[in-house]
Amino acid sequence: MFESAELGHTIDKATYAAAEPPLRADLLDAQFDVAEAKQFAVIILVSGVEGAGKGETVNLLSKWMDPRHLIVHGMGVPSDEERERPPMWRFWRALPAQGRIGVFFGSWYSDPIVGRVQGDYDAAALEQHLQTIVHFERMLVAEGVLLVKFWFHLSKKRQKKRLKALEKDPNTRWRVTKADWKRFKHYDEFRAVSERVLRTTSTAEAPWFVIEGTDECYRSLMVGRILLNALQQRLQQLSHTEKRILAPPLVAPIDQRNILNTLDLCQSLQKSDYKDTLEHYQGRLNLLVRQLSERQRALVAVFEGWDAAGKGGSIRRVTGALDARWYRVISVGAPSEEEQAQPYLWRFWRHIPRWGRVTLFDRSWYGRVLVERVEHFCPEAAWMRAYGEIREFEQQLVQHRVVLAKFWLHISKDEQLKRFQERETVRFKRFKITEEDWRNRAKWDEYEQAVCDMIDRTHTDRAPWTLVEANNKYYARIKVLQTLCQTLEATFD
Amino acid sequence: MFESAELGHTIDKATYAAAEPPLRADLLDAQFDVAEAKQFAVIILVSGVEGAGKGETVNLLSKWMDPRHLIVHGMGVPSDEERERPPMWRFWRALPAQGRIGVFFGSWYSDPIVGRVQGDYDAAALEQHLQTIVHFERMLVAEGVLLVKFWFHLSKKRQKKRLKALEKDPNTRWRVTKADWKRFKHYDEFRAVSERVLRTTSTAEAPWFVIEGTDECYRSLMVGRILLNALQQRLQQLSHTEKRILAPPLVAPIDQRNILNTLDLCQSLQKSDYKDTLEHYQGRLNLLVRQLSERQRALVAVFEGWDAAGKGGSIRRVTGALDARWYRVISVGAPSEEEQAQPYLWRFWRHIPRWGRVTLFDRSWYGRVLVERVEHFCPEAAWMRAYGEIREFEQQLVQHRVVLAKFWLHISKDEQLKRFQERETVRFKRFKITEEDWRNRAKWDEYEQAVCDMIDRTHTDRAPWTLVEANNKYYARIKVLQTLCQTLEATFD
Repeated sequence: MFESAELGHTIDKATYAAAEPPLRADLLDAQFDVAEAKQFAVIILVSGVEGAGKGETVNLLSKWMDPRHLIVHGMGVPSDEERERPPMWRFWRALPAQGRIGVFFGSWYSDPIVGRVQGDYDAAALEQHLQTIVHFERMLVAEGVLLVKFWFHLSKKRQKKRLKALEKDPNTRWRVTKADWKRFKHYDEFRAVSERVLRTTSTAEAPWFVIEGTDECYRSLMVGRILLNALQQRLQQLSHTEKRILAPPLVAPIDQRNILNTLDLCQSLQKSDYKDTLEHYQGRLNLLVRQLSERQRALVAVFEGWDAAGKGGSIRRVTGALDARWYRVISVGAPSEEEQAQPYLWRFWRHIPRWGRVTLFDRSWYGRVLVERVEHFCPEAAWMRAYGEIREFEQQLVQHRVVLAKFWLHISKDEQLKRFQERETVRFKRFKITEEDWRNRAKWDEYEQAVCDMIDRTHTDRAPWTLVEANNKYYARIKVLQTLCQTLEATFD
Repeated sequence: MFESAELGHTIDKATYAAAEPPLRADLLDAQFDVAEAKQFAVIILVSGVEGAGKGETVNLLSKWMDPRHLIVHGMGVPSDEERERPPMWRFWRALPAQGRIGVFFGSWYSDPIVGRVQGDYDAAALEQHLQTIVHFERMLVAEGVLLVKFWFHLSKKRQKKRLKALEKDPNTRWRVTKADWKRFKHYDEFRAVSERVLRTTSTAEAPWFVIEGTDECYRSLMVGRILLNALQQRLQQLSHTEKRILAPPLVAPIDQRNILNTLDLCQSLQKSDYKDTLEHYQGRLNLLVRQLSERQRALVAVFEGWDAAGKGGSIRRVTGALDARWYRVISVGAPSEEEQAQPYLWRFWRHIPRWGRVTLFDRSWYGRVLVERVEHFCPEAAWMRAYGEIREFEQQLVQHRVVLAKFWLHISKDEQLKRFQERETVRFKRFKITEEDWRNRAKWDEYEQAVCDMIDRTHTDRAPWTLVEANNKYYARIKVLQTLCQTLEATFD
């Protein structure tokens, strides 16, 4: 869930200087309307990695907004008054009233995360903690609270750099303590626990917004933008007759950098190398898949990607390695009438392989958060809850010894155009291109945003995405085969 | 959660014979409308204690309804096809399509409960299982499925009786196996695990209906009535523009027996005995409360009951035993403006005592499911979710070393009348009676139903209700004091 917050997002100072004043003005207006309406409270959680700008963000919000209706709660070590009550008591005590905005610097997440990293809680205790939190937040949302949860992230490398920079400057040296370096040693555990926590608590009603903390300008504008959108959406909603509560809207990175457009699409493989490499990996894969049965494992591979990115070709290179009795390829198109009369995931559950078998999905359950989102085939609430449902679904697969691999085949917009044109001119390829492909292409940006959100919200340690640079078909096919082999080998170890 | 299913509910055969034909006709009509509309699927779960009529109920539903749109799934031991897929696969496979009714005899609950009783799962594994179930059911409801969950219950005594009766009759002897008796030995564990499971999974969207299984006529009519109400409500909802999904409506026991009207209100205490007993318990309570501080415990006592049932008098007898510095009495009336601008439970969280202290609530958070429900001060969805929120809230208290005692002071309707009239005639008591009291009294039956639902849905092992027979004030006060002493002693042990 942290991948796109490790891309090195930045905004230059001039852009920031231009964007800040109107944003501040809009935020103040929105805050005034919230206070005026007195219909709902706003809670802003500020959490995340040390040194990623949590404190600065809290200061910024206090500066940007009217302090009469904004209360900041620095939730540090509990007082004895607080320790002698149930842990949630201090948060209940600090809840903002309707019309007000409460900023929680340190929140109900601090204790479970730190407690788990330090080993005070075992996995079961963490789980129970998280369920209390999920119930609590669901209650808040049901009571009309607008809950905006920010997680500020720094990659390990950047956190180290940040600590060193602070130490070097005599003016900020005091900010770096031994405890900070001690905590840094546990970065990996902290990251793993945080991922677990965010996965469980990023619900349809109250999703997390993960923000890269390196660059102050970027960080500040993102926070402002997300908050403003959330406030404006909720204020609009007040005048609607139907009071369906919507989650704060997702927001694309304002510096246009994302996990797709930072891929290196120049990677390629010579045809001469390809053939041998292909044979090598197909052989390896064959041997590995043979072992599934006795190891009581199944394999599910998901192929998603742009139109003409080479999903079909990659799948054929995989099936080329397999005995026809072992695998099935499921091509996912529009749902049948039978499938439409069932909950969304039903059509995929039917195809889950038994142990020893392989199912390859040519497009998949991710259609819900891609085509169905972009084309408005389902309401926003449906695709927002799909992220959580999919995480839960994949977790069940993995827990039941299914090896899961998920591929996004990525090509550039130019490469797609080239391939479309080629398909239209080469006669035996003409069936592969339809008007729909052109229509989808016209919505490239919306799809790109949907893909990035999908990866952010469904890439987990146990069910990771593999992004495949697919401008070069040979390179892409080999990367797919290689990833499958490595994933199986890692599981069998 | 099983208390009102141990009252010995029965319906005589004549009543049954009169009620069954119209019920069947209505059920068939409703089923036809569901099939016609093809807008939502219906899932009926049949779970519970062995011998409580699960099989008979399934047969009955098959008989009553049109088998073309009703599919029964007997979910026994999984096949190897099923074992080699994630546990939920078999249920996904069996989901009814929109317009159809699926009856699950044995369900996603069987495995976690049996597994926990047999020790295959530890507490953490059970918890995780339950969360998967909660997510699954939430998804079903969000997808429009009408989910009706029946739990058939038998008290330990009755289960034993039932097994013996079956064994005695040569025609049914084959039905009782050694395995049944072996399972009976684990009745108490089974009950405890089931309670835990029902508590966690009785959500606002998909509440459990616990039905006493002893009497076939009662059981069958209850099932029919609950199912019919649920179907009719959902069918009506289809024509509404606003598609808020409602939970199946709660239904009062059709034999009019309930946990209140089966109390023995003749219990009494002579005034001559009262004084000494009072002194005894007040002394004991004083010593116990003194220990709270060093034991790092707090005490919260909740007093609910009919108007004029003697809540104030009982509270005074408790505070009479305490040092004024130790306790606070919180009288709960209509919420203040400040409280109205907060989530419902906020006004109670503020008063949670620190260790060493006592808070006595004269009326409490249960107002949400009593007066607010009956007087329609809040929407149904709000009080339905309150059951779960209250269980969660009380669990947090108990986990944080708060000793929790909850009293319902019960008097008969006649006794209330007598007390009201006395209050009106005796001058110094006149302030105690208002028009509102008379208005509440006019809604006695609705309040009674609300009280029974409250006890059914919030009486748990860790936060039990004490029902106090309060027609005799002396008896009631002593029972309250005695219960407080015993609860503290049990906790301190």
